[in-house]
Amino acid sequence: MKKIDVCVSPELLHLYSLEDKIVVVTDILRATSCMVTAFANGVKEIKTFANAEQCRSMKEKGYVIAGERNGSMIEGFDLGNSPLHYLSGAFENKNVAMTTTNGTMAIEASRRAREVIIGSFLNLTAVADYLKKKEGDILILCAGWKGKVNLEDTLYAGALVYVLNENVSFGCDAPQLARTLYQSSKDHLGEYLSTSSHVRRLKKLNIQKDIEFCLQHDEYDVVPVLSNDKIEVAV
Amino acid sequence: MKKIDVCVSPELLHLYSLEDKIVVVTDILRATSCMVTAFANGVKEIKTFANAEQCRSMKEKGYVIAGERNGSMIEGFDLGNSPLHYLSGAFENKNVAMTTTNGTMAIEASRRAREVIIGSFLNLTAVADYLKKKEGDILILCAGWKGKVNLEDTLYAGALVYVLNENVSFGCDAPQLARTLYQSSKDHLGEYLSTSSHVRRLKKLNIQKDIEFCLQHDEYDVVPVLSNDKIEVAV
Repeated sequence: MKKIDVCVSPELLHLYSLEDKIVVVTDILRATSCMVTAFANGVKEIKTFANAEQCRSMKEKGYVIAGERNGSMIEGFDLGNSPLHYLSGAFENKNVAMTTTNGTMAIEASRRAREVIIGSFLNLTAVADYLKKKEGDILILCAGWKGKVNLEDTLYAGALVYVLNENVSFGCDAPQLARTLYQSSKDHLGEYLSTSSHVRRLKKLNIQKDIEFCLQHDEYDVVPVLSNDKIEVAV
Repeated sequence: MKKIDVCVSPELLHLYSLEDKIVVVTDILRATSCMVTAFANGVKEIKTFANAEQCRSMKEKGYVIAGERNGSMIEGFDLGNSPLHYLSGAFENKNVAMTTTNGTMAIEASRRAREVIIGSFLNLTAVADYLKKKEGDILILCAGWKGKVNLEDTLYAGALVYVLNENVSFGCDAPQLARTLYQSSKDHLGEYLSTSSHVRRLKKLNIQKDIEFCLQHDEYDVVPVLSNDKIEVAV
């Protein structure tokens, strides 16, 4: 049986072996939700950058540049970090260069894994189905908030463990912890998250609609996969 | 209002300020449960050592030496890490030198805090009452398992957040996460923990009785406090 593990913060990633694993990176609010929505709405390729200036320089190469720092759009960028930007289809067949506070860094930290895929509530079942078909153990990496544990990413990890259910056995205690958290709040996720520290931060930025959007389950069936230096949809 | 935070692993401790905080260290299975039981049964002083050989050398100074590595007693030591050792009262007025896999290291890591106290389910309400009377913000430090999150320490953190209730506001997301975990399993803690990785490890060592003992709430009203290089009961 496949083993599943959950790393609740990138700061703990050194405690897990990656080389033999499929890593599911998640940053629910909002990097990975944004990526999944972008691909589902026709974006061709996403490159991620931990450094905002490197990301900005991709503009010259024809990339749409997107990103945020501390939840706000970066000056001079084409887009912030809202999944709603992509819904009009205006970025169909475009390449996007993206930088975010936590999500991009979590992806960078996972590069040595056998495979890195992008997870969010929006493609929950699609990711679970993809994982069931693949050989190899699984590690869910929560982007967290500046190294600390956050609720929304841990909840997503719990949702994925919950959906995979009898197809996986647990590595450390974190999968059980995350699944319990999800099971106890899944019928009122938005309300449960409304008191979390990150949601309170984001509410000040008037993005309640983003939060509601990102908590929707199974809106899309795309599974974005990191290959070499870019993310594309798995075929 | 006091702020409360939960650090789910000593590996994340650098993300929290300690200098102005009262840190509650917990290692439910079994270091801090053991300490609380020892003091409640007359032990006078406990010194902790990350290094087993340093701990062993305290024997010459008249200390009872106690400790484990990976759940098993260290060869040549007087005691392992079971709280049951202390129930006979045989160690009344003794000084104990102790080393454990995770708990001792968590205490070492907390030394720069304003105050360090020792928490377990056994003295849950006593610790909560102590914290209510004291000025200053609170950080609960979970010893975890070799840097990873574990269930029993996170559950204790949740229990303490739950008991402190309206007396505290939350720092990061971890207090809410821990409280939800506790609330959803508090009526069947033993059963809930029976599938956890650490409990499975310990069961192989035949210490089911220790586990049941350590999950009891409010058996004792002692609050052990670290002062300089030793732990004593707060007066």
